Amino acid sequence: MSAARPPRPRRADFRAFEALDTRWADNDVYGHLNNVVYYALFDTAVNRWLIGAAVLDIHGGETIGLVVETACRYHAPLAFPQRVQAGLRVARIGASSVRYEIGIFRDGEDEAAADGHFVHVYVDRQTRRPAPLPADFRTALETLADQAPAASLRE
Amino acid sequence: MSAARPPRPRRADFRAFEALDTRWADNDVYGHLNNVVYYALFDTAVNRWLIGAAVLDIHGGETIGLVVETACRYHAPLAFPQRVQAGLRVARIGASSVRYEIGIFRDGEDEAAADGHFVHVYVDRQTRRPAPLPADFRTALETLADQAPAASLRE
Amino acid sequence: MSAARPPRPRRADFRAFEALDTRWADNDVYGHLNNVVYYALFDTAVNRWLIGAAVLDIHGGETIGLVVETACRYHAPLAFPQRVQAGLRVARIGASSVRYEIGIFRDGEDEAAADGHFVHVYVDRQTRRPAPLPADFRTALETLADQAPAASLRE
Amino acid sequence: MSAARPPRPRRADFRAFEALDTRWADNDVYGHLNNVVYYALFDTAVNRWLIGAAVLDIHGGETIGLVVETACRYHAPLAFPQRVQAGLRVARIGASSVRYEIGIFRDGEDEAAADGHFVHVYVDRQTRRPAPLPADFRTALETLADQAPAASLRE
Repeated sequence: MSAARPPRPRRADFRAFEALDTRWADNDVYGHLNNVVYYALFDTAVNRWLIGAAVLDIHGGETIGLVVETACRYHAPLAFPQRVQAGLRVARIGASSVRYEIGIFRDGEDEAAADGHFVHVYVDRQTRRPAPLPADFRTALETLADQAPAASLRE
Repeated sequence: MSAARPPRPRRADFRAFEALDTRWADNDVYGHLNNVVYYALFDTAVNRWLIGAAVLDIHGGETIGLVVETACRYHAPLAFPQRVQAGLRVARIGASSVRYEIGIFRDGEDEAAADGHFVHVYVDRQTRRPAPLPADFRTALETLADQAPAASLRE
Repeated sequence: MSAARPPRPRRADFRAFEALDTRWADNDVYGHLNNVVYYALFDTAVNRWLIGAAVLDIHGGETIGLVVETACRYHAPLAFPQRVQAGLRVARIGASSVRYEIGIFRDGEDEAAADGHFVHVYVDRQTRRPAPLPADFRTALETLADQAPAASLRE
Repeated sequence: MSAARPPRPRRADFRAFEALDTRWADNDVYGHLNNVVYYALFDTAVNRWLIGAAVLDIHGGETIGLVVETACRYHAPLAFPQRVQAGLRVARIGASSVRYEIGIFRDGEDEAAADGHFVHVYVDRQTRRPAPLPADFRTALETLADQAPAASLRE
């Protein structure tokens, strides 16, 4: 919309990928994925990755993630029955919050068709008060961190 | 619900399979796939199969399928992030209508977790009046027909 | 689809009504409510009525309703931004199960644009085993019961 | 999440309101509206208002709105069966784009439970190239414009 709009991210900007389906009902009256659907893809990619990393138990875990902010920019249309890949990275890990950034890619394309973020605050399931990120959770998130580990910094 | 309830279908009862994702938002407050979601899976499986068979053009085709009846029986719960397979068969091919039957299977299980059907009436995109099934469409559907092709009948 | 298809129900065939919105994303690529959406309307109408009758507590109740069967027939198209009314009746109350029947009506029309049913089995939230319907729940359901008024009342 | 987070908007910050339903399936496994649902509410409120103002014809209009950016901040949980009101205002009207801002309010509350925006670019239905906003459309949008009434008008 303006000169200040950040460029479309590329696959190399992300640390992990999840393959995702589209559904018939995702297409709206204009024949493309409705803008709402992208958030369903974001949610699915992040939560599936966390479950796969064995750090999220949506049924019994003591800590649950509440979403406090989400956003998406749409660059190119997608449509059922395309399959897509969601690229994931973590841009900030706070005491009890995480900012996830996601790119949605079409097969064989290097520039994201859409990209966005959402911010989770982790809270105690019962009290719904912010809770420190569990250690194993933080360790898993660091593998998604949006920083190339500079070898010299490790010496 | 009663002695008359037909048995759960098995994988061998279907002619083609489509792999399908579940999504985070599919789980309802009780922690399992909401009953509505199964119909989104049915729609997706059938339409993706038809598009893959090159007999459905959802954007420009002259004939479109309108749904006149759907039903589903739920046998065992499913939950995100499970992936499932949809088994497909065609139980009846009329002049302008088709009855699709679908089973939803969990990985490694032979009995369907859910099964259902929907009846499409094919209509002209503009007039919305029933239209004869195109010949290539009928040929494709016959590969899903719910009948073991008896060799003797073909001689 | 056949001579045996039951007629479209009318408003007088139902015992209670819930007003429901449609949403932008409900319209599919063909410009009408996707077939899946009707089940979201069914679910919403029945659960909202039960909550309004103070016999369903979705967060803390000991008994929860699991859906074992649903079906819908589609008679006339609906489209966002139409508002609709859902007519409700109960066709059968068993020891631990209920068959709800629903008609979806457009403003000012007496014949249903769609009608369907779903069967709930009520189970213990923890064990997920069938549980007898609580007495207050049964009493509420009886006000929705699909019973012909006693002949004596008509005289 | 930080000192810089803008305050929650209030009802007086919006120019028009649309009443919206929630649905049973909107509640996720944590018992509250899933973050995705808010965007379905945004879309519904804006498009319903535009249709009500007789400046959007989703089926036949020559100009259609494509979403290029959306965002939402979540302040307080909502849950089915609550009904909500969506407050609408327009923050910027460009040659062919519009920034809509939306607040979601619970009954009887003056601070928004969530607020967000989305940016539409209006394009020709066939070419999908940006098109100037039609004059009647622009006139309607100006009634939603987020501008303090000129002081002279108040005298």
